Amino acid sequence: MANAQSNLPLNIMPLPAKVERAEGSLKIDASFRVTFVGFREPRLERAGQRCLHQVRRQTGIVLLSAGANTGAGALEVKTDHESKAIQELGEDESYTLDVTPGGAKLHAADPLGVVHGLQTFLQLIAISPDGFSVPAVHIEDRPRFPWRGLMIDSGRHFIPMEVIKRNLDGMEAVKMNVFHWHLSDNQGFRTESRKFPKLHEQGSDGLYYTQEEIRDVVEYARDRGIRVVPEFDMPGHSTAWFVGHPELASGSGPYQVERKWGVFDPAMDPTDEKTYKFLNEFIGEMARLFPDQFFHIGGDEVNGKEWDANPKIQAFKKSHKIKDNAGLQAYFSGRVQDLVAKHKKTPVGWDEVLVPGVPKTIVIQSWRGVDALAAAAKDGYRGILSNGYYLDLGWSAARHYAVDPLGGPAAALTPEQKQLILGGESCIWSEYVNAENIDSRIWPRNAAVAERLWSPDGTSDVASMYQRMETESARLEWLGLTHQSYQRVMLQRIAGSWSPAEFDALRALAQALEHEKDYAREASASAPPTSVTPLNRLVDAVYPESDVARRFSQATDLFVGSSCLDRVKEAEIRMHLAEWMTVDERLQALAQRSLLVNEAAPASSALSQAAKIALGALDAIQKGAPLSADQKKLQLDALSALEQQAHKSQLTVPELPAFQKLVEAASSGSVCAK
Amino acid sequence: MANAQSNLPLNIMPLPAKVERAEGSLKIDASFRVTFVGFREPRLERAGQRCLHQVRRQTGIVLLSAGANTGAGALEVKTDHESKAIQELGEDESYTLDVTPGGAKLHAADPLGVVHGLQTFLQLIAISPDGFSVPAVHIEDRPRFPWRGLMIDSGRHFIPMEVIKRNLDGMEAVKMNVFHWHLSDNQGFRTESRKFPKLHEQGSDGLYYTQEEIRDVVEYARDRGIRVVPEFDMPGHSTAWFVGHPELASGSGPYQVERKWGVFDPAMDPTDEKTYKFLNEFIGEMARLFPDQFFHIGGDEVNGKEWDANPKIQAFKKSHKIKDNAGLQAYFSGRVQDLVAKHKKTPVGWDEVLVPGVPKTIVIQSWRGVDALAAAAKDGYRGILSNGYYLDLGWSAARHYAVDPLGGPAAALTPEQKQLILGGESCIWSEYVNAENIDSRIWPRNAAVAERLWSPDGTSDVASMYQRMETESARLEWLGLTHQSYQRVMLQRIAGSWSPAEFDALRALAQALEHEKDYAREASASAPPTSVTPLNRLVDAVYPESDVARRFSQATDLFVGSSCLDRVKEAEIRMHLAEWMTVDERLQALAQRSLLVNEAAPASSALSQAAKIALGALDAIQKGAPLSADQKKLQLDALSALEQQAHKSQLTVPELPAFQKLVEAASSGSVCAK
Repeated sequence: MANAQSNLPLNIMPLPAKVERAEGSLKIDASFRVTFVGFREPRLERAGQRCLHQVRRQTGIVLLSAGANTGAGALEVKTDHESKAIQELGEDESYTLDVTPGGAKLHAADPLGVVHGLQTFLQLIAISPDGFSVPAVHIEDRPRFPWRGLMIDSGRHFIPMEVIKRNLDGMEAVKMNVFHWHLSDNQGFRTESRKFPKLHEQGSDGLYYTQEEIRDVVEYARDRGIRVVPEFDMPGHSTAWFVGHPELASGSGPYQVERKWGVFDPAMDPTDEKTYKFLNEFIGEMARLFPDQFFHIGGDEVNGKEWDANPKIQAFKKSHKIKDNAGLQAYFSGRVQDLVAKHKKTPVGWDEVLVPGVPKTIVIQSWRGVDALAAAAKDGYRGILSNGYYLDLGWSAARHYAVDPLGGPAAALTPEQKQLILGGESCIWSEYVNAENIDSRIWPRNAAVAERLWSPDGTSDVASMYQRMETESARLEWLGLTHQSYQRVMLQRIAGSWSPAEFDALRALAQALEHEKDYAREASASAPPTSVTPLNRLVDAVYPESDVARRFSQATDLFVGSSCLDRVKEAEIRMHLAEWMTVDERLQALAQRSLLVNEAAPASSALSQAAKIALGALDAIQKGAPLSADQKKLQLDALSALEQQAHKSQLTVPELPAFQKLVEAASSGSVCAK
Repeated sequence: MANAQSNLPLNIMPLPAKVERAEGSLKIDASFRVTFVGFREPRLERAGQRCLHQVRRQTGIVLLSAGANTGAGALEVKTDHESKAIQELGEDESYTLDVTPGGAKLHAADPLGVVHGLQTFLQLIAISPDGFSVPAVHIEDRPRFPWRGLMIDSGRHFIPMEVIKRNLDGMEAVKMNVFHWHLSDNQGFRTESRKFPKLHEQGSDGLYYTQEEIRDVVEYARDRGIRVVPEFDMPGHSTAWFVGHPELASGSGPYQVERKWGVFDPAMDPTDEKTYKFLNEFIGEMARLFPDQFFHIGGDEVNGKEWDANPKIQAFKKSHKIKDNAGLQAYFSGRVQDLVAKHKKTPVGWDEVLVPGVPKTIVIQSWRGVDALAAAAKDGYRGILSNGYYLDLGWSAARHYAVDPLGGPAAALTPEQKQLILGGESCIWSEYVNAENIDSRIWPRNAAVAERLWSPDGTSDVASMYQRMETESARLEWLGLTHQSYQRVMLQRIAGSWSPAEFDALRALAQALEHEKDYAREASASAPPTSVTPLNRLVDAVYPESDVARRFSQATDLFVGSSCLDRVKEAEIRMHLAEWMTVDERLQALAQRSLLVNEAAPASSALSQAAKIALGALDAIQKGAPLSADQKKLQLDALSALEQQAHKSQLTVPELPAFQKLVEAASSGSVCAK
């Protein structure tokens, strides 16, 4: 049995740099404790308490001796020295973990490595035939990139404190170390400013973080080995600033908090010295509030319309020989970077800030792509990748996982240039994200990005990634994240009063579908969505990536890839098709009673009809009666039309590629019927 | 459509005293607001904010004008006057609610009625073909009993603050008005005492409520129309007191916090004046901390062994002509009641405190039964019923619902005597309950008790109760209760890493089973459970009442009750039986890997085998081939044996009575096969 256990894969995510298995395991029982040797500090004690709390959550075991510092069955933590008072980019985050049947030892140079190592230890705890235990193992681990971030957009939808905190817990769990906090946008200015209180008072609908709360988040993050980089987007994306301070704008106002989504005209006046006087004071205040060395100034998506419409700005361009708005933005950006530097911070900006002559200190965050990032590195700029890591676009974990900051043209960089690529950041833009569903839009897929940024180059087994991600997903719910549990209450709201049969049909529908990808939702909405559009529809309740669809596709691939009829896979496929074929019928009555179910009816019907086509194909394969070319075309066309139909509900049917494969296999006769 | 909607039953729970439906409905959209006229106070404003928050949760609608006091689509709240500064037993809790398509009006004499009326309004919000709306209705409502309580035992397992608070939210939702807080027991003394800090410092394992937290709970409860009655159980159930204060005990000590469950020997020394000096100061401190008029002194389950073993106490009995330990307890109880009265409080005690000559002021809480309660009322004592409302025993909601404080012998009381029966309290004793699963042990069944205590005499439609309880159960999760969502994370812990097929089988098993009833768990445990026994087993994760089993029983009753073969019900029954028959097989591999699944294997096997027997019976009915008397006996015996087998996992198979009915129907030939 011990051998059987030691062959099971370890559910560590991100994968460590080096893992060696050994015989036996460390039993976890009521006597488990964490002890500290070497350098000690309250932060380490708190990390130990967090670890014990999480052991309780994961195992349900009552830890009698919590807090005691002696005894068997302990995890001994040895720390060589303190880390920097203000966490810095590139500090040592490595650790070594040794687990034997007699105990466990975690060794790290500083508390950052300890925090990471504790998470690895927690991930190793598993139920076994004898109860909970940790397999004997030797792990040496360190990150591939020093900048591994998650950006949360608190501007478009305000994200409450407790949601921010539980996502910091999630980041700690997967060893991410930068929380990039997008704190202002057209739709909201979310930070209390004591120097300029009209910013948050008039620009936030009352939804902002107090300075006390921000200090709390910074401290909470520091405990978890996470730096907090604030972003105040300028000169565009700044309508919310102008509600209280129209004098900063290039237009004549008055301004209101923006309710719509998109790129808007309002932009700061880059030609007026009082803009810089204001920003100097504001950046100074924020530089004191956020201790991190880096300070994000945004800089993206200025459409220039307010500049073009303002004669004074036109005159300024002429007198300063600035030939276009890009040049004007470069001028603004340079001035702001000077202010950031004056307040002893290092600026970060989106791609657009990279213009000829910009100081090499700036860090470029690339939303445009790895090409731009590589080009910047060639020019000697440091950069972080976000293109390919936009979690709000609804991509699969596998697709994010395939994106590498050192992939594409960056692979051809010199070692010195590669050093300039600091890592990456996943981003969750919050047009269609609120406190209720944000966890599900971040997790568990963010764990795949975290692994890409931590684990050694070449870590690329997608099947292993998914298997470990599913286990980690369960563990994240014990940390308080709600990315799984949110769904049932949302479906209950959609269904209203229900019979179990109806509710099961609705859940089967929800778990088979995904929301539209990329930016399709704006296009498919019946009315332009705004910040007050309720996020209470099926599109808001479905998972971004359907596990059911992924497994169905795997089964279909195996089925159509086998030269003889795979009866087991056939049965699995038939079971799903049978369920989906009945979904629409089972929801008819409920759709009559509930507007929200009725809005999903086109997608429900599309899934049912598509499943019926797939079943026809399967029958044809089973009978050994291949479809004609005409029949094949007819059915593939029908499937495409059904995908379009699903978009009426802003949903997509992720099983369609698998259905198409069944139709193609049925027409090729490649699967024999015996 | 409007007519179809107006015929749907209203999901109000507890049922109001009087409901009249009208045509049309009030649409709930972004303009919804709550306005106040008449008496106003901050507590009412907070109630309005809570209502708006809950509208957001229930509908997902962004309320733009929250806080504004004008506009259409409003709920206007009219309050005549303030309620008592300290909420009193028997205050006016009535309200009138009128909803028309143009708006809603809630009218109440005081804020207590408002709080109840707001909950009714929230329960009326439903999804419709046009979106969210409230049906037009006229409601006049008032409670049947003035004392409608929930007791939570924080002694045996400490229940954290946030769990207490969310259960107060739940109580508000179903109009309960007394939170009885069991704050000390052998296993823990849970209240900070500033006069005697050794009580909580040495008697709680560090798990206690600070006085600040208690004041917070009292205020939180008051906002919700709930009184807080503290209980300090004495002279028995008091081991935890003696850890820091052995001088109070009748034995020689030393004492330790008790880890086991049961009735124990330690008891206060009723013969020593320093006991009363201590209690005088302690009760004085607690009387100031808890503003409610009532003060619970426990008084239950003293076994007298420490008294019998103490020569000084024996001498006291002799010198005071006290003939037995009941008399000694009566002496103690009388002294303590005097102290309670001295501190201007009214005592409450369990049945045992009712002895000849006890002052009529005391309120008797009956755990022994409605007979004792009626007898007390005949003698002029006020009483509240808890027998029949012990939620930890795992009874069905229907069984609790059938218990009436004025049922049995109480029905024969005079109207004046009936007035003395103040109501009832559900109780959750926490031997097998902790922060993780307590919500599921209280909710939704507690809503049935709440309805019994609020709704008019004669409210007794069990089917209606279940239907409304299921809807309310969903709503309670929006309030933050976790009585549904807790289960998946517990099952994930039990399963460890899993395949979806295995996890589905485990969930099907969990949802088909219930935990053992009454006090069977102590008997069936392999080792005596204690306060540090992990509550991480399947028995801790299953719902106390299986909805699946209840619906299956209903289907079976309809099937065996029909004179001809009901094909629809037959198909439903077969579907369930087929699933259960495979559960055990599907869990075989997982049981090899997980100790916690393996411990449930006897129950899993019992369910599978019993389902197979039921299927055989169904086949016999379908074939029109009745079972012989011998076959019938054999199979009924087998079913009984399987129930015993399930107890090895501390579980019970609630489908067994339905299975038995199928076997009986198969042998009687009462269902024809055509």
